[in-house]
Amino acid sequence: MIFENMDRIVFAGDSVTDMDSAQPVGEGLFDNLGIGYVRIVDNMLAAYYPELNIRVTNSGVSGNTSRDLLERFGRDVTSLNPDWVSICIGINDVWRQFDSPAMPDCQVLPQEYEQNLEKMILEVKGKVKGIFLLSPYYMEPNREDKMRRRMDEYVAICAGLAGKHGCMYVDFQKMYEDYCNIRHSAFIAWDRVHPNRVGATLMARAFLERCGFDYGHRASAS
Amino acid sequence: MIFENMDRIVFAGDSVTDMDSAQPVGEGLFDNLGIGYVRIVDNMLAAYYPELNIRVTNSGVSGNTSRDLLERFGRDVTSLNPDWVSICIGINDVWRQFDSPAMPDCQVLPQEYEQNLEKMILEVKGKVKGIFLLSPYYMEPNREDKMRRRMDEYVAICAGLAGKHGCMYVDFQKMYEDYCNIRHSAFIAWDRVHPNRVGATLMARAFLERCGFDYGHRASAS
Amino acid sequence: MIFENMDRIVFAGDSVTDMDSAQPVGEGLFDNLGIGYVRIVDNMLAAYYPELNIRVTNSGVSGNTSRDLLERFGRDVTSLNPDWVSICIGINDVWRQFDSPAMPDCQVLPQEYEQNLEKMILEVKGKVKGIFLLSPYYMEPNREDKMRRRMDEYVAICAGLAGKHGCMYVDFQKMYEDYCNIRHSAFIAWDRVHPNRVGATLMARAFLERCGFDYGHRASAS
Amino acid sequence: MIFENMDRIVFAGDSVTDMDSAQPVGEGLFDNLGIGYVRIVDNMLAAYYPELNIRVTNSGVSGNTSRDLLERFGRDVTSLNPDWVSICIGINDVWRQFDSPAMPDCQVLPQEYEQNLEKMILEVKGKVKGIFLLSPYYMEPNREDKMRRRMDEYVAICAGLAGKHGCMYVDFQKMYEDYCNIRHSAFIAWDRVHPNRVGATLMARAFLERCGFDYGHRASAS
Amino acid sequence: MIFENMDRIVFAGDSVTDMDSAQPVGEGLFDNLGIGYVRIVDNMLAAYYPELNIRVTNSGVSGNTSRDLLERFGRDVTSLNPDWVSICIGINDVWRQFDSPAMPDCQVLPQEYEQNLEKMILEVKGKVKGIFLLSPYYMEPNREDKMRRRMDEYVAICAGLAGKHGCMYVDFQKMYEDYCNIRHSAFIAWDRVHPNRVGATLMARAFLERCGFDYGHRASAS
Amino acid sequence: MIFENMDRIVFAGDSVTDMDSAQPVGEGLFDNLGIGYVRIVDNMLAAYYPELNIRVTNSGVSGNTSRDLLERFGRDVTSLNPDWVSICIGINDVWRQFDSPAMPDCQVLPQEYEQNLEKMILEVKGKVKGIFLLSPYYMEPNREDKMRRRMDEYVAICAGLAGKHGCMYVDFQKMYEDYCNIRHSAFIAWDRVHPNRVGATLMARAFLERCGFDYGHRASAS
Amino acid sequence: MIFENMDRIVFAGDSVTDMDSAQPVGEGLFDNLGIGYVRIVDNMLAAYYPELNIRVTNSGVSGNTSRDLLERFGRDVTSLNPDWVSICIGINDVWRQFDSPAMPDCQVLPQEYEQNLEKMILEVKGKVKGIFLLSPYYMEPNREDKMRRRMDEYVAICAGLAGKHGCMYVDFQKMYEDYCNIRHSAFIAWDRVHPNRVGATLMARAFLERCGFDYGHRASAS
Amino acid sequence: MIFENMDRIVFAGDSVTDMDSAQPVGEGLFDNLGIGYVRIVDNMLAAYYPELNIRVTNSGVSGNTSRDLLERFGRDVTSLNPDWVSICIGINDVWRQFDSPAMPDCQVLPQEYEQNLEKMILEVKGKVKGIFLLSPYYMEPNREDKMRRRMDEYVAICAGLAGKHGCMYVDFQKMYEDYCNIRHSAFIAWDRVHPNRVGATLMARAFLERCGFDYGHRASAS
Repeated sequence: MIFENMDRIVFAGDSVTDMDSAQPVGEGLFDNLGIGYVRIVDNMLAAYYPELNIRVTNSGVSGNTSRDLLERFGRDVTSLNPDWVSICIGINDVWRQFDSPAMPDCQVLPQEYEQNLEKMILEVKGKVKGIFLLSPYYMEPNREDKMRRRMDEYVAICAGLAGKHGCMYVDFQKMYEDYCNIRHSAFIAWDRVHPNRVGATLMARAFLERCGFDYGHRASAS
Repeated sequence: MIFENMDRIVFAGDSVTDMDSAQPVGEGLFDNLGIGYVRIVDNMLAAYYPELNIRVTNSGVSGNTSRDLLERFGRDVTSLNPDWVSICIGINDVWRQFDSPAMPDCQVLPQEYEQNLEKMILEVKGKVKGIFLLSPYYMEPNREDKMRRRMDEYVAICAGLAGKHGCMYVDFQKMYEDYCNIRHSAFIAWDRVHPNRVGATLMARAFLERCGFDYGHRASAS
Repeated sequence: MIFENMDRIVFAGDSVTDMDSAQPVGEGLFDNLGIGYVRIVDNMLAAYYPELNIRVTNSGVSGNTSRDLLERFGRDVTSLNPDWVSICIGINDVWRQFDSPAMPDCQVLPQEYEQNLEKMILEVKGKVKGIFLLSPYYMEPNREDKMRRRMDEYVAICAGLAGKHGCMYVDFQKMYEDYCNIRHSAFIAWDRVHPNRVGATLMARAFLERCGFDYGHRASAS
Repeated sequence: MIFENMDRIVFAGDSVTDMDSAQPVGEGLFDNLGIGYVRIVDNMLAAYYPELNIRVTNSGVSGNTSRDLLERFGRDVTSLNPDWVSICIGINDVWRQFDSPAMPDCQVLPQEYEQNLEKMILEVKGKVKGIFLLSPYYMEPNREDKMRRRMDEYVAICAGLAGKHGCMYVDFQKMYEDYCNIRHSAFIAWDRVHPNRVGATLMARAFLERCGFDYGHRASAS
Repeated sequence: MIFENMDRIVFAGDSVTDMDSAQPVGEGLFDNLGIGYVRIVDNMLAAYYPELNIRVTNSGVSGNTSRDLLERFGRDVTSLNPDWVSICIGINDVWRQFDSPAMPDCQVLPQEYEQNLEKMILEVKGKVKGIFLLSPYYMEPNREDKMRRRMDEYVAICAGLAGKHGCMYVDFQKMYEDYCNIRHSAFIAWDRVHPNRVGATLMARAFLERCGFDYGHRASAS
Repeated sequence: MIFENMDRIVFAGDSVTDMDSAQPVGEGLFDNLGIGYVRIVDNMLAAYYPELNIRVTNSGVSGNTSRDLLERFGRDVTSLNPDWVSICIGINDVWRQFDSPAMPDCQVLPQEYEQNLEKMILEVKGKVKGIFLLSPYYMEPNREDKMRRRMDEYVAICAGLAGKHGCMYVDFQKMYEDYCNIRHSAFIAWDRVHPNRVGATLMARAFLERCGFDYGHRASAS
Repeated sequence: MIFENMDRIVFAGDSVTDMDSAQPVGEGLFDNLGIGYVRIVDNMLAAYYPELNIRVTNSGVSGNTSRDLLERFGRDVTSLNPDWVSICIGINDVWRQFDSPAMPDCQVLPQEYEQNLEKMILEVKGKVKGIFLLSPYYMEPNREDKMRRRMDEYVAICAGLAGKHGCMYVDFQKMYEDYCNIRHSAFIAWDRVHPNRVGATLMARAFLERCGFDYGHRASAS
Repeated sequence: MIFENMDRIVFAGDSVTDMDSAQPVGEGLFDNLGIGYVRIVDNMLAAYYPELNIRVTNSGVSGNTSRDLLERFGRDVTSLNPDWVSICIGINDVWRQFDSPAMPDCQVLPQEYEQNLEKMILEVKGKVKGIFLLSPYYMEPNREDKMRRRMDEYVAICAGLAGKHGCMYVDFQKMYEDYCNIRHSAFIAWDRVHPNRVGATLMARAFLERCGFDYGHRASAS
């Protein structure tokens, strides 16, 4: 697995990352890490690799667009000196275009999204062991749906930047699409955005696969 | 308009009808009628037709399937001696098939749905001035979606029974489909089922149109 | 209808406008717009004119007199760059003269009321497409009642300024008077000031009529 | 004063009597007596006549009509073996006719009101030292108001029964009319029914005057 | 009666004056005046003298000693431009000597008490129509009790300053002593300090007697 | 010390015994034993005599008179098969005579008190290793105080029954009298009845002294 | 994997199983399954095997001993017609012997434990596809600790019954022992009993391994 | 006993000292002192030595390491001018090494612990009558346990500094070890750190023994 003892991973994002975590940054005891995929990643690492102490930090804030996240990125991500940074942003950039069509100042259009995301990448690139880009998504299997179509543009931007900057890329849109071929999205998320714990488990699985996580791993006592 | 002074209308249904109304039956002062389409219908009748005292009763209970509603129909609808009865049921019959696929005893299949709905109709037919059937719906424009396909079966059953028994039929599925051609469902309902107040306004509009409601009506003082 | 796509309307006022809206300024998702006439206007616009994205902002604050509103008018109205401004103020200017007779510094007398209201008008006149003046009111049909007599002075001032400055005027006092000829004010408002949702529906109706709202309007998908 | 040591007075009524008292019957320590006129009567008796132990019991229940009160009169009044009984009922009998015009089963018409009230009187007449009838009221100075006109019928019935059965009669309608000649009803009650503490003080004053209460009384230690 | 139309009275004090009033200064609508003797004084003035608008302000703060009150006297009393000032302070000065004997910095000894109280008097003397000194008290009939003996020193200081500066003096200690000759203090106050509403009624009575309040007064409409 | 391993002690009483314990009977983990003298006795036994497992049960219920306690004595004391029973009752029998003088049915007079207490003693006498009678008390050093005088009658009855039936007697009245010779009752109890934790410590000390509790005891591990 | 489509698994147990699940039996939407190992098992099954609908039911109740569980086993387990039953009980049987040594009736000794557990096994044996016995445990690595020693007796009984009746056995005691060789128990559970989510993840892992769960499994859409 | 009339003792520490006390410093009435050993010490002093007024101040703050306590030591201890200072710190210094192994910045290693503790001692040494060092502890009888082994290093540092600076030393680790030879730690503390009230009683006992506290002491009235 790619993580080493005493590595620190900071997960930046919106409500999907946040999931009731301490604000604006949560880690350590109790429910500070929230109840979403970040918590499950932390649980899995600690349960399967007890010999590795890996510090997981949740810098997700509900409702954030890429513009909001960029604004607090220095304080809530870079200044924490992470070894690894994970960014999952863009859902609200798109969503506001459909649930608040009369409020353009709440919306972040593709060009700005790309700029915001690239600025974040550049802020930590070279200072960390690796950057994860977790794609935004909309659990809508119908590719003709307007919000899905719009989201696909953002997913493409995210994938493009991952390639351009050598980030590890996790395609949540693809993962949910595959899953919804079998089970209806109603099983995972009422609003096709906020996953229940089954969804969070799927997201953690996708993330960990990208990290070389070995489910069969067992540690010996030191 | 079809309602006369001192008429009583009882609206039976699930959470879409209920919307925080008093349980199991709500009417009269304060928020007893809830905050959904039933309340808006009541507000519109009282505001535009002040010379007509029309009693509106909300017999919606969240989570009800047609099986649940049938069980309490005598107590919560028939025994109230309504002049008009409105039934809007079936969404949970379908939804449980997709969000709880492992729990078949929570699901109501089409054949039982038809029987349940027809029993309710027969229980009040002939005792009331008229019966409204408001179709169940899923605000999913993609007709290939599995839950939408399933819902279409129930909508068809509902429409069929309306025709068979001479009920006034309101096609909410069609109404939402038209609306979602223009605005995305995310604007109306997070989960494509529970409408916000814009959705409730649309439902009230559709209902009132079926009643010959005249927006230009003005009363003179008696 | 007079509103165009992407227009912004800001409703300034007191508790009658506020009605549990976000403070000091509410708009967008959830219940930020409160539950009074502003919300109903927003719901009606979105439900009947889905092809028009109109931004509705609630700048009502409970308990405000015209003096209080003037003080925050720059921050909560003008700086928002509205296309349309609606002002409904004056009820508390009068009410405090009757419920707090020993506290003259809480009361706003007619001369100051006129000055306050005119200052607000002048602050936005020429910058916006139109200004609505919604009259204060007291749902007291007895014109000999002292508070009703006093309110009539303020209503007259409001009407006078509307004429002087070419504002669109909505006479809530007249509207409620007509309604109370048929139903008792006890049906609409316990205190003859704060309307229940039937009253809010009446106020929204009166406002929308002034805007050329067409209840028969239907949009085609773009 | 008419009360003697160890006398028990039971006050029956609706929300005006209840005023947050213990339900259905309140007396003794803490706030069991509520915060309305009953509490002030109790306070005045104890403060000005400390040598007399007088037991005051509040049997007011919010929302009660004369029909509701009659139903529980045996349990909440007669069975307590009072020395004196005070009845203040009828406001909701009238109010429901105006705030819930479509719900006739919530309304109590004059003929039934008279029967209900007389039944209560007869249930305790002869068993107690005296019966107080406190008139219902509506703090509406305009006698042409429909609800005031209606209330006047009930006040007249109440006065008539007081005369017929030798009850002590307190005319709250008259008392409030006099007061509202000087101060506006907005100073006393938002809804012209539920008095604030100034109103409760006025009601207690009117009650105590009927009892020969002496404000100048001072007791000597036994 | 000594108060005139539009007079303002400010009541300064500790928890006995405060009694859940708005902090630090309460007046006007709702429960801003608290539920103690200040509220009853206000209620009595408004109920018996409706033709006089008298503004009552509660500047009581729970736990205040004379040292605490002096510190905020400018802000909470003088700057309000009262016509009349009432001061009731000293109970906590004494109480802390008995419930917190190890914490001398919480206690205010007699010499400082006298200085504090006189400074307050001098701050408003000459600027107001009159000053009320309401004595501190301990509802302990046993004059040999140590706290009662201590309190008697403070009562004497208070009475002395009233005489020296021509203040109107109300002797609550004497009033409670008389009352407790008849009823046990347990009837009025669990802790012999904080009166229930019977006690508050007694205090209001004692205050109003000092003001020439006429219980038989009735106003005619203007 | 008189208690042996696996002995069970049940403490019956009123609010002084109860002190927020589980209702009607509390024991075991968490705060089931309340926070009064019973808890401290339990803490002391467990801390100083760890080798003895002694089961302490709190059967105190706030507001109980001896009449109330007698009524539930079978269920809450006898049926628990205690080895030792402690009874502390009578305060409310007396208190109600002073704080609720008009409600004689809440009061328990001396003759009934003696009967009630003796019935309780007889119900367990012979079935248990020993009975403790803890005297009621009023922390009023002035023996001329009416409530203290009355309480002294009950204390004497309690002491008399202890002698007659060979119960272990703890004189809380005497204990508090001694303490209040040094510190004022205000230090221990606001209302001279409900002790703070210093008072509870005093009561536990007095109880334990009667049991031969040895503060110097230390156990060796078994 | 051993589970088939539409299988139902019922997990019976104490607080370790319960973990805030609906009471007494929880399943389906929202947090009805609690937040412990049962929820994680359900999440893993649904996430990795979406083509299998497996119904998971949580019949854990906090504080249950084997005696308590046996008493409700018919209602909460057998009557649900499970295909698989999992039992994890015994921790409280032991714990009460150490935290409540004076309350023997709360404790379940080894002989009774064995009888209770065997009765449960026999109640479902032959009616279900398989029975899981999950051992009780105490996260205490020191085998000389008295409670650990005691627990080892119960673990042995549990293992013995699993062998005797052909149940699938999961040795949580061994699993935690291995883990605590690497990380201190303070990382997993404050009280060495109630696991945090890392612990719950470990328990789910141990359970799933016994079921032939394949982490690499992926389903194809039907 | 070593304390004299009007002495002030300040107890500094972490959650074991804090135990719900007022933050950051608690003393005086109500529950300001919390519910732990500090409260019991205060109760014992006041109950057994009523002639001595001793001021007890709780400066415990939950979660504090020695680093945190040192940072606030000036404000919360020295500036209060204590006569005696008690310090009980170090548990969290150790605990974080085991429950948060990946977060080294939350952990305080032995060398820093010694420096922090010595700085606190030096800050008050010479200014006070005496300094108490209360050892940190872990109620773990197994000396091979890693956290116990680590704690033993801190206990040794604490003891060493006590000897070096002439502080009064209380060995809580030893005291708990002796107690746990007889009763299991589960009886005293779920997490082997936070004592229940039996544990707090043990700690108070150990502290008071160090002070020459005489359980047989009785005061005479002055």
